Amino acid sequence: MIGVFDSGVGGLTVLEALAAELPAEHFVYLGDTARLPYGTKSAETVVRYALQATEALMRYRLKCLVIACNTASAVSLPAIRARIVNVPVIGVIEPGAEAACAASRTGRIAVIATEGTVRGAAYQQGIRRRRADAQVTAVAAPLFVALAEEGLCEGPIAEAVAHHYLDPLFAVPRPPDTLVLGCTHFPMLMRAIRAAVGTQVTIVDSAQTTARHVRRTLTESALAAAGGRGSLRLLATDAPQRFARVGARFLERPIEAHEVELIDL
Amino acid sequence: MIGVFDSGVGGLTVLEALAAELPAEHFVYLGDTARLPYGTKSAETVVRYALQATEALMRYRLKCLVIACNTASAVSLPAIRARIVNVPVIGVIEPGAEAACAASRTGRIAVIATEGTVRGAAYQQGIRRRRADAQVTAVAAPLFVALAEEGLCEGPIAEAVAHHYLDPLFAVPRPPDTLVLGCTHFPMLMRAIRAAVGTQVTIVDSAQTTARHVRRTLTESALAAAGGRGSLRLLATDAPQRFARVGARFLERPIEAHEVELIDL
Repeated sequence: MIGVFDSGVGGLTVLEALAAELPAEHFVYLGDTARLPYGTKSAETVVRYALQATEALMRYRLKCLVIACNTASAVSLPAIRARIVNVPVIGVIEPGAEAACAASRTGRIAVIATEGTVRGAAYQQGIRRRRADAQVTAVAAPLFVALAEEGLCEGPIAEAVAHHYLDPLFAVPRPPDTLVLGCTHFPMLMRAIRAAVGTQVTIVDSAQTTARHVRRTLTESALAAAGGRGSLRLLATDAPQRFARVGARFLERPIEAHEVELIDL
Repeated sequence: MIGVFDSGVGGLTVLEALAAELPAEHFVYLGDTARLPYGTKSAETVVRYALQATEALMRYRLKCLVIACNTASAVSLPAIRARIVNVPVIGVIEPGAEAACAASRTGRIAVIATEGTVRGAAYQQGIRRRRADAQVTAVAAPLFVALAEEGLCEGPIAEAVAHHYLDPLFAVPRPPDTLVLGCTHFPMLMRAIRAAVGTQVTIVDSAQTTARHVRRTLTESALAAAGGRGSLRLLATDAPQRFARVGARFLERPIEAHEVELIDL
């Protein structure tokens, strides 16, 4: 199985991209809904939680572990990789940074993410490691998370919030030509974000770039499923009914509450 | 000391009201910032967390414990009272329900709160216990929490969100005459909320009603401080710097990060 870990339902956007890219694979998704959000927590706490989630997912004999949470990817990858040395561990930051560097002509790249991801500066470092000349502006956009969770992804409020965060970055003389959506919730607000930045900006959705990266990794290691129909198992640490209700919007298909298995970390 | 417990910084609005009402008292405030928000968590989880917080606060030899978190008040008061039988435990729900019943002429009362508080129906029950004829409409308004945390308490976004939640309740033929702010974050958005509901609606701020209730309880039990100058000790379970930065807006005075003591529950 491929394990997918997130702090809550946001990583379901990554899972959806993975299932589209790898339809024959079996997935187990763990949302740490009892302790979300990770975006406002300290790095030490996030590392501790991510290691507990890794332990729980490893019971499913994973061939690959995807850290779909940007905050956890930003701070806990080295600790997770030290814990499970035989399984490839893929976060969402590096694929997003790579795609941004490939897409940008001017080297001016904007990143919107949670407070924790911005503070951890993992995108900024990942981008500058690939392009020393890059000018990266990173801004925390926590209201986007609340809007996505509530399903208020379009309309005047979503657009006003998009302008609130994005105008200071893009309504300037030499604006970025690339915007990285550095939080799994943000693809839900794509239309409002696109309306705020205009049509000339390349928007890098880290869910899609991560899914392509996972497919490449499995193919290169000869670990990809040969064929057949994939499956999905959903785990949550709290409130399976809310997980089903809110998660359905992120996964873009209905989820029944009884499909969500409650586990304790 | 008087203990004040909240899931995060929101309870600082209650603490501020308490300090204004009882300036000679010594307060210890615990914000469970590692595990916020409680509003989306299951009742079982919230009760477990609240009992852990109670244990931690009881080390300060409390004469009174205030559960400033609406969600925790709604579900965990019986469990906390069973644990510490000799100390009065005061939640924010009952004082708010009492004030709403006293204020309403028509019996039509609206409550805005978090998902957990609305689902737990504690305000609805508290109001109907006092006024059997009351017509209570309760709505979850989670975006207000995100707006308050980010300091976006006024302006077009706050006003649009206020209309989004409040118009379905108040732009109707026989609207409520009383609105209970059933979440500690919401008094921060008072101006936007007032603009949305108009001047004829009584807004019950549970921070102020709770502070008056605590003063009455201490006076009746002869536990109130005789005089002198009070003090304040701040505890958090994670990210003291964020607590200081965001909390300062709620407490309406600057907080230095070194004033916030990090504890583990």
